[in-house]
Amino acid sequence: MLSVVYNGASLRPVCRPEPVPGPGEARVRTTLVGICNTDLEILRGYAAFSGILGHEFVGIVDRAEDAALIGRRVVGEINLSCGECEMCTGDLREHCVRRQVLGIRGRDGALAEYLCLPERNLHPVPDRVPDDAAVFVEPLAAACRILEQVHIRPDSRVVVLGDGKLGLLVAQVLALTGSRLTVIGHHPDKLAILAGRGIATRREDPDQYPSADVVVECTGRPEGYHAALQIVRPGGTLVLKSTYHGHVQADLSRLVVDEISVVGSRCGPFAAALRLLELGLVDVVPLITARYRLADALAAFEHAARPGALKILVQT
Amino acid sequence: MLSVVYNGASLRPVCRPEPVPGPGEARVRTTLVGICNTDLEILRGYAAFSGILGHEFVGIVDRAEDAALIGRRVVGEINLSCGECEMCTGDLREHCVRRQVLGIRGRDGALAEYLCLPERNLHPVPDRVPDDAAVFVEPLAAACRILEQVHIRPDSRVVVLGDGKLGLLVAQVLALTGSRLTVIGHHPDKLAILAGRGIATRREDPDQYPSADVVVECTGRPEGYHAALQIVRPGGTLVLKSTYHGHVQADLSRLVVDEISVVGSRCGPFAAALRLLELGLVDVVPLITARYRLADALAAFEHAARPGALKILVQT
Repeated sequence: MLSVVYNGASLRPVCRPEPVPGPGEARVRTTLVGICNTDLEILRGYAAFSGILGHEFVGIVDRAEDAALIGRRVVGEINLSCGECEMCTGDLREHCVRRQVLGIRGRDGALAEYLCLPERNLHPVPDRVPDDAAVFVEPLAAACRILEQVHIRPDSRVVVLGDGKLGLLVAQVLALTGSRLTVIGHHPDKLAILAGRGIATRREDPDQYPSADVVVECTGRPEGYHAALQIVRPGGTLVLKSTYHGHVQADLSRLVVDEISVVGSRCGPFAAALRLLELGLVDVVPLITARYRLADALAAFEHAARPGALKILVQT
Repeated sequence: MLSVVYNGASLRPVCRPEPVPGPGEARVRTTLVGICNTDLEILRGYAAFSGILGHEFVGIVDRAEDAALIGRRVVGEINLSCGECEMCTGDLREHCVRRQVLGIRGRDGALAEYLCLPERNLHPVPDRVPDDAAVFVEPLAAACRILEQVHIRPDSRVVVLGDGKLGLLVAQVLALTGSRLTVIGHHPDKLAILAGRGIATRREDPDQYPSADVVVECTGRPEGYHAALQIVRPGGTLVLKSTYHGHVQADLSRLVVDEISVVGSRCGPFAAALRLLELGLVDVVPLITARYRLADALAAFEHAARPGALKILVQT
C-alpha cells in the first residue's frame, strides 16, 4: 500500500505491505487524514519517530474481531496502552509508561491506505458528522480536555492565546461555557473565523493585555508562556496546550507569590468531541485550507508548513 | 522604641517612635518574633523593602478600637488589603493589588517593641498554645495553604522536597492526611525530627527518586524544581512553596506531555494553623535553634544565615 514514511532524515512516499491487525485490533481503510503541527515537529526531530506519519484520521473498518465494527466509519484514539502498568491500572491509560502513539511513538500512523488500532480505541462516527468534520476529532478532543481539567465558570474571564488550528478549536469549545472569552492572535483572517461566530478577538498587543482568570496558551512559542503570565490574574490558571523546543527561561517565583496554577494539557475525550460536532456546536470546516491526494503528500506537508496555513487534509 | 531596621543597604538596631494605630488598627506589644528565610532574602535585595523587618510574631494587644481585644495574646495575618480593588472584592484579599505586607512591602514589621495591624488581621491565641508555638503560626498557615489548593487523599503518594523550616512544617501538616508521605532532605539531624514522629524520610539521591502523585518543593533552590519534575508522576501535581532568585531554565513541554499541574502556594489560614497547634497535632518546638534579645538582633540574623540553622527567635 502507498504510505508516507519519515525515516528520521526525510519524508517519502513508500510502498509498504498492508498491515495485519494483531489480537484485539481492527484494521481501518483510511479515508481522510489531517496534518498536525506535531507531524511537522517530527520532521524537525521531535519524538525521534520514524515510520508512517499521521494521527488525525477518519476511515472505514475493514477487519475486526468484533463483527459489528466491520464497515463502520470510525475515528480513533491515538494512545495504545499496555493495560498493566501503574498508569493503566490507575485510570491513566493515556499516560501508560509503555504506550505507543499512532504516528508519533513506536507505531505506524494514518498516512497510508490502512492502519491498525485496538478496537477499544475506535469510535463510530455519527451519520450527521461528515468526514471533513470527523477528521478534526483528535485535536477537538484535545481542546475538550481543558474542560476536564479546569472548571471554567460562566462568568470566568478567559483568554486564548494563539489563532492557529488548536487555538481556533480551543476557542470554539471554551465559548460554549458562556464565559467572557477573548482570543488574542496575529492573523486577521484567522481571527475573522471566530469573530464570524461572535467570539471576541483582538490583535496581539503587549501594551494592551487584558486580565483573565484562565489563560490557555496555544501559540507554540515560548513568548506565549511569558504573555500568558502577564495576563493571568493572581490566583488564576494558565493552561499549557502547546509544547516548545528546548527549555524556557521561566519566572517560577511569580507562580508562588501570585499563587498561579499551571496546568499541562494533552489528549482529550473523543466521545465529547464527536457529540459537539454532531450537535453542530463547533464548526471546523472553515479551518480547512487545502486537500491533497496521498500521492501528493510531500506537497501537502510543504503547504502545511507555510505561514498562514491552517488544516491541510490528505485524501487517502 | 528599639527596632531592627533594614535601610536597603544594612541592618541596624534603631530607636524609632512608638507607632500609633490608624483607623481600624490595633497596636501589639510584641513578645516573640521569628526570623524567616524571607527576612534573609530581603537583606539580599528581595522585595526592595526598607523599614522594620519581621513578620512572624506573637504579642499582646495594647491599644484597639475593639476593647475586647485589649490585653489579648494574638498572632497576625501579614497582608494588609485595600478592601476595594478587584482582588479584594473577588474574595482574594491576600492578593490585593495595593496590599502592604508586614515587614516585607510598604509596612514596618515585627522586630520592634510595638507593631500596628488592622484588627481584622489579628487572631487570639488559645491558652494552651505557648508563645514558642504561636510564633510559628504564620509559616504553619503557609503549610496548611497546600491543603486548601490541592486535594491530598489518604492513599496519595506525597513527597516533600527540602528539610528546612518550611519543609519540616509542611511535612508535619501533610502527614495528618494519612497519605503515603516521604520527605527528602540533606540534613540527618533535621530529618531525624520528622523520623522521630514516624514520618518516612530519605537522603537526597537523584538515582533513587521515588514516584509521587504530589510533590511539594520547599528547597528554595532551582535544583529542587528539577528534582520535583523527576519525581511527580504523569497527571500529578507539583506544589511550589519556595521562591528562587531570578529565572529558571524550565522544561515546560514535560508539563504538557505528562499533563502535570504546577501550583504556586503562599500564605495560608491562620485559624487552621492555630487549631493544629491547640490540638497538639504539630510540634514546632524542635525547630527552635536559638533565642536572642532584640538588642542582639544582628547576631540573631547572623545565626539564622548559618548552614544548618532552623528557627531563630528574637525576644522583644
